[in-house]
Order: sequence, then structure tokens, then C-alpha cells
Amino acid sequence: MSNASNNRLERLLSRFAAGDRLALARLITLVENRSADVATVMERLYSRAANVHIVGITGPPGAGKSTLIDRLVSKLRARKQQVAVLAIDPSSPFSGGAVLGDRVRMGDHYNDPGVYIRSLSTRGSHGGLSRAARQIVTLLEAFKFDVIIVETAGVGQTELDIMDLAHTTVVVTVPEGGDSIQIMKAGLNEIADIFVVNKADRDGADRVKAELELNVHLRGDTGWRPPVLLTQAANDIGIETLVQQLDKHWEYVRSQRDPVKECQRRIHEFAEILTDQLEERARDALRNGPAHELVDAVSAGRLNPYAAARHLLDDPSAMGELLSKSAGER
Amino acid sequence: MSNASNNRLERLLSRFAAGDRLALARLITLVENRSADVATVMERLYSRAANVHIVGITGPPGAGKSTLIDRLVSKLRARKQQVAVLAIDPSSPFSGGAVLGDRVRMGDHYNDPGVYIRSLSTRGSHGGLSRAARQIVTLLEAFKFDVIIVETAGVGQTELDIMDLAHTTVVVTVPEGGDSIQIMKAGLNEIADIFVVNKADRDGADRVKAELELNVHLRGDTGWRPPVLLTQAANDIGIETLVQQLDKHWEYVRSQRDPVKECQRRIHEFAEILTDQLEERARDALRNGPAHELVDAVSAGRLNPYAAARHLLDDPSAMGELLSKSAGER
Repeated sequence: MSNASNNRLERLLSRFAAGDRLALARLITLVENRSADVATVMERLYSRAANVHIVGITGPPGAGKSTLIDRLVSKLRARKQQVAVLAIDPSSPFSGGAVLGDRVRMGDHYNDPGVYIRSLSTRGSHGGLSRAARQIVTLLEAFKFDVIIVETAGVGQTELDIMDLAHTTVVVTVPEGGDSIQIMKAGLNEIADIFVVNKADRDGADRVKAELELNVHLRGDTGWRPPVLLTQAANDIGIETLVQQLDKHWEYVRSQRDPVKECQRRIHEFAEILTDQLEERARDALRNGPAHELVDAVSAGRLNPYAAARHLLDDPSAMGELLSKSAGER
Repeated sequence: MSNASNNRLERLLSRFAAGDRLALARLITLVENRSADVATVMERLYSRAANVHIVGITGPPGAGKSTLIDRLVSKLRARKQQVAVLAIDPSSPFSGGAVLGDRVRMGDHYNDPGVYIRSLSTRGSHGGLSRAARQIVTLLEAFKFDVIIVETAGVGQTELDIMDLAHTTVVVTVPEGGDSIQIMKAGLNEIADIFVVNKADRDGADRVKAELELNVHLRGDTGWRPPVLLTQAANDIGIETLVQQLDKHWEYVRSQRDPVKECQRRIHEFAEILTDQLEERARDALRNGPAHELVDAVSAGRLNPYAAARHLLDDPSAMGELLSKSAGER
């Protein structure tokens, strides 16, 4: 890294530490663009000690998650809490753009200095979304928000993985035909700490509630029994109860902190970070040189990619060189 | 690898080559269990020369994808084609189990020796689903099916990534309120080669068709113009047209094969395979020893995981040793 860019990064980190929002936004952009500085930034700002409640909100498209979050933010702001919202769009893998609609509903909060809203769109990169989400949450924690809300739309595997970041996962659904079945098929029932049946003025809300409660019952006693709440976010009904349950679960999580699980979580996180960085370096190395003969052979179809991978992996010194060279070249 | 297990693997590969279905099933199970033999199997069976049409079928939950596939398989069987179906469940990240329902509809085909049906459930492992899907498709290609159908349920990022495997991607929707918007929000319109509006006897089918056609129109001329088909899979209506369009698109894909793109695809695949294997080895190394001091420090909270990762990555020989040792230990 050059001295000039080094200084620029230091200034950015100082401004971040002083609570400058623009510095936060700039650092998030570095993460989105997979800048080479990200590892340095993360190492400097990493701190899991912070007492920040990370709330995940997920559920099928059309469940009204954005409106619910909008109302939830209002309640948290009334308690003077600083709130960050990270909305993760399952947007186009090609354009990286999101369809307008959900975002604009949050309009009221955009001018509130106690609320930070950021939308993260995918870039079609395999695994990149989970990594970016984890890094941005680390930045938001370091910025000392009181509550961080992570919204994932859609019901896919990546979206489930991202919910691992949350202390409390809220699964939102609506009383439409078969919705509790869809929740179960998507595996959402397994990760829910709180269920919300939104748009509860529609027919069938009580039935969905009963089905979800039965499901909770069948899971047996696991210490925390996920409540099933009825809300009408559009009419601001039921949000107070949601806030109470969030507080209650957060208290539960803190009371349950298990040193063994905490160690496992740290090792898991370390493995994620290491493999993310290995992956970055390997991709970089394939693009930028060190393995170009192998790449040419694979590209021309002369060598099958599994054989090429074995070739590299079976030679520890080649591997070490490959991964460090590429790092030097950035 | 011991000689005994080596011999067992060789026998399995011979039986596979002779067209033994049980051997195919056994090899798929190795992939699912992430056996250490997978790399060897893949290297031996990798062949992209095969003239196998890979059809991806995706769309929101409840669109009737399984019924559609059931009917599609019947038509392909009537032409004496050998068909494989790989259904990828967005099932529980905890139990690995799928909810019954969709699968059982395919009952008629389970006893047909010309059809192979396999359901792949996730094991909650980050990135593991795409890898397993790619490897299983490679096995199915090598087994010389004529058509491989890959179904993903859900609308998440992983599910979109898996659709990269397909030559032809079919996006299935239903004429329900806002469904074409959901398709666009999920980025599905960008990957569709063929749109299917299923359950087209319901109100609004023509409107959804018109919206999707407008969307195709706005994308501009890209050579292939995705058709929007109306089907009623439950009544076996419109499936013949779908088969015709699949043939047409497959012909189009083969006529368009661009040597430059083909090279890019191979390099992309190589990068995937290499980084998958790197990731496996790194995780293994963290679990099984070589880096245990670092792991202990991270686990105890004495060292932050980004610092620990930098420590390893900055030392090429440690890195090389780490990745190869773990391989030896398996």
C-alpha cells in the first residue's frame, strides 16, 4: 500500500472513530467494492464486546417487512436508541440494481440523524453477499449503534446464512393460503426466535398463528419458546408488543451466554474470515498471473479443472507462493 | 487413502461406467457427505463434452414447479429420452430434512428406469449447496442422461447462482397479485430464457404474461427473446409448447457457442473448484491441528479473527504447510 493511500485510510478511520457518518458510509463502500483495504479496516475495527443487539428480519417477499421495520424504527427512536438498518436485496445478479418500492417507505427516517439506513445489493458474486453483510455489521457495531436491524428478502440459503449474524431472528409472514407451510419448507421455522403474522386484519391470521404455535410446540422445550405475534404494520398495530419481545429475547440471549458456544462461534467466524480471504487471493492469483500456465491449459480445454486444482493443491510451496504473490500484487 | 478404500472406489467407478444406477447413487452420496474421495471422483468423471441439455427450473414457492417438472418428464420420456431430476430443497439448515409434499407428486416416475430423481437438501453449510449441485450435475452428465433438470425452490442468491449451471433457465410464476414484480425484484427476469405462467386458468394470467413480455421487450434484442408461455401443469396443458421452446433454446445455445465465452466459463469453473477445495482444506486444518495455537487464541477472545487470518496469510510457507498437512491427514 502506498503512503498516500495509507494516510487516507488512517484519516478515514479517525473520522469513523469520531462518529462521522460519511466515514462510515465510505468504509461500507470499500466493503461493497471489495477493496484491498478491507482486511486492514476489519482488523482495526473488529470488536464483539459491544453491547449491540443485532435483529434479523426475514420472510417471504410481500410479507410487509419494510413497513414493519419502518414502524419498529419509530418505536426504538422514541426510546432514543441509535438504529442502523441494513437491507439486503435479492436484486439482479447482473445489474446490481434494486427495484424501487420497499426502500422509499423508509423516507421518514432518512433525515433522522439517529437512524442509518443502507441497502446492500448483490453483485452476482458467489458467497460475496454473506461476507459483505458480516463485514458491514462489524462496521455498524464498531460505530456504536444500539440496535442493528438486518433485513433479508427472499427465502434462499444465502439469506438463511446471513441470519446467523443476528442475536434475534424475526420471521415475518402473512395470513395467506399455505404460508405457514412455505415458512416450514424454507426452513424459516427453525431459525425463528419470534414469529410475526403481519397484515393480521386479513382472513386466516388466527389459523396461521395456530399452525405456527403448533410447530413451536412440536419443537419441544428449548429454553426460549418463540412467541407468535399478530401485527398490522401499516396501521401501527402490534409493534409495541414486538419491541417488548425483542427486549425479552435479547435479555434471554445475554443471560444464556455460554462460554463454550462463544468459543465455537469465534472459531466459526475465524474459519469464515480465513476462507473468504483465501478465496479472494486465489481468484486474484488466477486472474493476475502466478498460475497462468494452468489457467491457459484449463481455458483451452486441455486440462480438466479438477486435475488442475489437484496440481496446485498437492504442491505446498506452489500454493504458498501463489497465495502470497497475489496478495503482494494488489 | 488405504488400498482397500482405493479398490472400493475403483469398483464403484467401474460400475458407474457400466451404467449401474446404484453406483451413481452412491457417488452422489459421497458428494453430499463431502467425502475426501470427491476430488478424485470428479477428476475422473469430469467431461463437459457430453451433449447433455441442462435445464434449470426456478421460481417462487407455490408456483407449481414440481407438477410442471412431472409433466415435462412425461413428455421427454415419450421421446425415449433419459432424464435426471435434481431437486434442491431450501430445507432446514438444522435438520437437513425436507417437508414432504412436492416430492411425492413425482411418484409415477420413481419406478421408471429412464428417470432418475434425486433431492438434495442443504446441511446449513455456507456455500456448500452450489458446490454439491455442480458436482452432482457433473456426475449426471458423466452418466449420459439426455436431459438434466435442476429445480431450485425459493428466490435467494444461492438459488440464482445454481442456475448458472443450466443451459436453459425456465422461470415459473403464477397469476397472483404482484407476481411479476416479485419476479423482477428477485432478479429472476434477468436469468430467464423461458418464462412460464403456470396455473393459467386463474385470473390475471394474461396480465402477468403482458407484464413479462413488456419486461422482455424493454431488455432489448439480445439474440434470444425469452418467450412467455401459459401452462396448466395440473391439467397437462401447455407442456408440449414448453418442450418445443426448450428444444429451440438448446439449439440456439449450441449455435451460439462462443469460443471466448467457453474459455471464460472454464476459467470461472476452475476458480470455483480451486476455491472450494481451498476452503475445505482450510476448515479441516483449523479443526485438525496445524493452526491450533492461533485457533486457541481466537477461541479465547485473545486475538481478533482478522488479525489471526492476516498472520496465516502473510506467511506463505505456513500457509502452504497448513493447506497440505490437512490434506494429508484426511
